[in-house]
Amino acid sequence: MRRPRISRHDSQSVPRVVILGGGFGGLYAARALRTAPVAVTVIDRTNHHLFQPLLYQVATAVLAPTDITSPIRHLLRKQRNTDVLMAEVHAIDSSERVVVTEDGRKIAYDYLIVATGTRHSYFGHDPWERNAPGLKSIDDAREIRRRFLLAFERAEASQDEDEQRALLTFVIVGGGPTGVELAGIMPEITRRAIAKDFRHIDTRAARVILVEAGPRVLATYPEALSARAQHDLEALGVEVRTNTLVTNIEPDAVFLGAERIATRTVVWAAGNVASPLSRSLGVPLDRAGRVLVEPDLSVPGHPEVFVVGDLAVPPPQSNGKPVPGVAQGAMQGGRQAATNIRKKLAGQPTEPFRYRNKGDLATIGRHKAVGDLGFVRITGRTAWWFWLLLHIMYLAGFRNRLSVLVEWGYAYFTYQRGSRLLSKESPAART
Amino acid sequence: MRRPRISRHDSQSVPRVVILGGGFGGLYAARALRTAPVAVTVIDRTNHHLFQPLLYQVATAVLAPTDITSPIRHLLRKQRNTDVLMAEVHAIDSSERVVVTEDGRKIAYDYLIVATGTRHSYFGHDPWERNAPGLKSIDDAREIRRRFLLAFERAEASQDEDEQRALLTFVIVGGGPTGVELAGIMPEITRRAIAKDFRHIDTRAARVILVEAGPRVLATYPEALSARAQHDLEALGVEVRTNTLVTNIEPDAVFLGAERIATRTVVWAAGNVASPLSRSLGVPLDRAGRVLVEPDLSVPGHPEVFVVGDLAVPPPQSNGKPVPGVAQGAMQGGRQAATNIRKKLAGQPTEPFRYRNKGDLATIGRHKAVGDLGFVRITGRTAWWFWLLLHIMYLAGFRNRLSVLVEWGYAYFTYQRGSRLLSKESPAART
Repeated sequence: MRRPRISRHDSQSVPRVVILGGGFGGLYAARALRTAPVAVTVIDRTNHHLFQPLLYQVATAVLAPTDITSPIRHLLRKQRNTDVLMAEVHAIDSSERVVVTEDGRKIAYDYLIVATGTRHSYFGHDPWERNAPGLKSIDDAREIRRRFLLAFERAEASQDEDEQRALLTFVIVGGGPTGVELAGIMPEITRRAIAKDFRHIDTRAARVILVEAGPRVLATYPEALSARAQHDLEALGVEVRTNTLVTNIEPDAVFLGAERIATRTVVWAAGNVASPLSRSLGVPLDRAGRVLVEPDLSVPGHPEVFVVGDLAVPPPQSNGKPVPGVAQGAMQGGRQAATNIRKKLAGQPTEPFRYRNKGDLATIGRHKAVGDLGFVRITGRTAWWFWLLLHIMYLAGFRNRLSVLVEWGYAYFTYQRGSRLLSKESPAART
Repeated sequence: MRRPRISRHDSQSVPRVVILGGGFGGLYAARALRTAPVAVTVIDRTNHHLFQPLLYQVATAVLAPTDITSPIRHLLRKQRNTDVLMAEVHAIDSSERVVVTEDGRKIAYDYLIVATGTRHSYFGHDPWERNAPGLKSIDDAREIRRRFLLAFERAEASQDEDEQRALLTFVIVGGGPTGVELAGIMPEITRRAIAKDFRHIDTRAARVILVEAGPRVLATYPEALSARAQHDLEALGVEVRTNTLVTNIEPDAVFLGAERIATRTVVWAAGNVASPLSRSLGVPLDRAGRVLVEPDLSVPGHPEVFVVGDLAVPPPQSNGKPVPGVAQGAMQGGRQAATNIRKKLAGQPTEPFRYRNKGDLATIGRHKAVGDLGFVRITGRTAWWFWLLLHIMYLAGFRNRLSVLVEWGYAYFTYQRGSRLLSKESPAART
């Protein structure tokens, strides 16, 4: 049953590189080691790479979960020096140079790349999570989709106008790209896609409220683009509340200071906290638990351990700015860690990580987007088409690309949402 | 917020028809009432109509759940006399003429069509369900997909050859169309689609065992087609065991009398039992809890209540045969119940239900099928293409049709499975 190959079980001859996480950081690191004289093992708790930038479209039933996921082992199937293990890693023992899985198994490494990312942070208000799920994993997206679709079903069944109004009020906390894109797509759905499907409610009267604690949405973008994004959102009917703090979230309401907004559907897109694995490294972390790495992305005192993506805080770049927690940052970090492992194997000094900003881009609804490509800023339809092209290009796996194009085409021309699937599942049954 | 229309809340003037279940029976009944002078309410515990004949393709990760589901209210959106309610109905009170939902709400009817179908039956061995899930709902399919995909992941991670062998053994109980189609598609996946993705196991060595208690598979088909189906399955490497009773199912083994087959993945495709709602009607039921209806599909003593689809047992047809529990039987029954309600409204006598057998068809793997169209029997590739055409034709909703064609085309030409999505979910979290 076994086919002898270079593998984690039997390779003693070549250095073992273990990569934790099959997201953008881990996947691009593994790919960059394709021709290296090493045995690579990618470990992820799920079987799939997730195209996170489109997760908000799964949460709003535009795309299906399988459209933006691809099995990691399928993506790496042609890379003969690499194997993939689906397992939950509980700890890193950097003195023994092993990672320990949930079921107590130890996997040895010579080099380690940690790319396990972040989870949403509730800034000390963990009980809010139940009422305001975040959007990081495909299960998160399914849960938000369930709540979003169920709100309309319950409103249709309700005979109480106040309850209907609360059910048709959607609050998104956090005005970063996720919050903005989620808020921008919702009016399209409530006003167009589903309006004719209901008899007792007018879905076009639904409210979408975007709450941002800071002075503007898309805080990391140039100010002019933030203003344009807010303008475009408001034109779609989204209520944008900047400089507004959420003070409490209950099952049937969000509190903004003294103001109470009756709602049953809140999405949390506000903060990130490191995956708990970072603590087991025993190195300096920032307040969010992220690892303060060396310029070459290695961990202080452990030049054989690299941290990339969201989980890493490299020193500020030459322009004085931090590396943003976006897909590009993770991809480039993953490649840099791989390069530095190759340098070490060749006896050469490692290189510092230099983030090349290829631009920021966020869609707003059906036809608009704002983008800062460094050399030029784009808005409106141009930016939207550019966004479309770019995302199709980067989508991992041909089948997903084609399928997403079909679904987008369908949604675009018919205003219909393709993936409005709701099961008879109790909320408690979903974790 | 309300738009006044004919609806379940305010219509006193026209007769109210309540339809329980949005499957083939319920959907086709509702459609047949489109121009009738009635107010129709379709109630389902989920939001979607499910194209059940393709459920086995979701269970094996060929299609995505959203490819074979469509929101019921979307399918009926243009039908102005109809509304749709997502609710779980707990009882029918036929003396009061109301149905009672889970949350105690009563919905009155003048005419009732019950089309809630069947669940799988374990013939008194309910504890087997945990080890051998059935395949009726989209959640069932997701759960079987999860177990199927996870078996390969665990085998790849295992270092014990016996455990690997057990993990790569798949047992399907029941040789009806579901069992045959499921068994026929599995070798294609283990031998082709995923073979190159693994490093430590040879997925081509996986065993697929189909167990049937009776003397032949596809027992309701002509004998020659049963023999052909068994031959085709065996040519694909499936071990077909007819005349074989399952005597026990444990988490790590299936027992066929004295024989113990070590396996971690068993699918139950063997028996059906009526949805529990039938009992609350207080009318004669068969052993499986199905309702023994009158020739016009009404319930004895309640000419205003009709039962259609799987849940109904009409008197034997003129050829002496029972109505088969397939999509065609439910569609035709739904239409007949609608016709009979229209007859009653017009003061005319009802018509008896006559099932018109349009034929039986089952695929076996990638290129083959067997079919009995009444006037001709087809096998091999011809039958397979006919099957393809027919299923695309009947798939509800344009978007699904297109999406399914894309995914089938992709799977057909590349041997790849599109929907291999596995989350980090504990088995206990899924119901």
